[in-house]
Amino acid sequence: MTTPKGTRLPPDERREQLVALGLDLLGRTPPEQVSIEAIARAAGISKGLLYHYFPTKSDFVVAVLRQSRDELERRMAPDLSVPMTVVERLDASIDAFLGYVSDHAVGFLAITHARGGEDAAIRAVIAENRARRVTAMVDFAAALSSGPREEVESPALVVALEGWLSFCEGVVSNWLAREDLGRADVRHLIRENLLATLAAVSGVDPRPAAARLARNAAALSSPTARDAAAPAAAPVS
Amino acid sequence: MTTPKGTRLPPDERREQLVALGLDLLGRTPPEQVSIEAIARAAGISKGLLYHYFPTKSDFVVAVLRQSRDELERRMAPDLSVPMTVVERLDASIDAFLGYVSDHAVGFLAITHARGGEDAAIRAVIAENRARRVTAMVDFAAALSSGPREEVESPALVVALEGWLSFCEGVVSNWLAREDLGRADVRHLIRENLLATLAAVSGVDPRPAAARLARNAAALSSPTARDAAAPAAAPVS
Repeated sequence: MTTPKGTRLPPDERREQLVALGLDLLGRTPPEQVSIEAIARAAGISKGLLYHYFPTKSDFVVAVLRQSRDELERRMAPDLSVPMTVVERLDASIDAFLGYVSDHAVGFLAITHARGGEDAAIRAVIAENRARRVTAMVDFAAALSSGPREEVESPALVVALEGWLSFCEGVVSNWLAREDLGRADVRHLIRENLLATLAAVSGVDPRPAAARLARNAAALSSPTARDAAAPAAAPVS
Repeated sequence: MTTPKGTRLPPDERREQLVALGLDLLGRTPPEQVSIEAIARAAGISKGLLYHYFPTKSDFVVAVLRQSRDELERRMAPDLSVPMTVVERLDASIDAFLGYVSDHAVGFLAITHARGGEDAAIRAVIAENRARRVTAMVDFAAALSSGPREEVESPALVVALEGWLSFCEGVVSNWLAREDLGRADVRHLIRENLLATLAAVSGVDPRPAAARLARNAAALSSPTARDAAAPAAAPVS
């Protein structure tokens, strides 16, 4: 924390300071073990003042998780001012995710682990964040299928994307715990897994949009992985 | 439970009954919320007798998790007396996994969620179970690469397989919570994801074994997913 303990702060800054502190604390301790006392002590304020900003610990953790999600979504938002191919854009987005989890390594792991925690409000915001990511990925699938969302959305696509999000978590949890694998390698595994996940849905969903999605995903897949030369990806504005 | 409450049982059967009860209880409640009282009450025995079998709650949960893993491994063990292609064998193994998680749906979810729990012994047995699955999958990758284990094992392969195991958990958690996707569809998603995961490692590991693994995995992948005709899988005795 750069703000010295006990400094008088305007309410907005104080709230921001507390949430930043929470991100740091949640990075080191599971939510159910973070105590209001520890937060107040770390911020150099009284428990009473902390309760003024966050009536319950659950309110506090939920604010931290929302803030953390906003930061991740901001980082992953595509920079549409730069012309890139689909694969470049996908890689940039995965890279932003990997940069975020590197910066908040322990926090990311704590959030992953908090999914099964006891607090209903905390579980709800984690589930909400996850649902937002699934929605964003269905949008990506629709764009890749060159069709409207409703033609590509299906139980199989949603379940497959939930699987892929878990794949990302599993890969990243392990990557963060070891030092023998580079970020570009992890990005490759995550990107290829997404393209394969999207392609595999066509084995379950007989609609033409699923077939288009499979074709376009396979075309973007790295030649090494497919053991065949892939056509060059079409640039996308 | 089929054993009536309070029945006198020989020690071995009692222990077995308690572990079966634990599987059931852990299916409905996270480990940290399962109370010794609730277990003893459900078994119709005294807390003292329960402590005779399991000195701490952690010992009890660990016994339940080991038992649960043994059952899963027994179900997934290949039946070598039946001639099958690699894909048939893979599908049979995934099917056994899906049957197991269907039978123990809530228990499976509880174990998945317990990964981040507070008890070190419980976390250790969950990590040990996971490590055993990674080892089994590296063996599968070695067999598929037609080479020895050390030629195919790498940080990238291990991280990718950890990702795939998380993929399975993510897919299954979601599948169990909905009724609009069949088991064969889930099996397809899991199988294709594994083959793609194994193939993608060659984009990161330049060794010939990784290339062989990629080639053989791609050859087994479903034609729909690869958008090209796949050669027939060679039968394996």
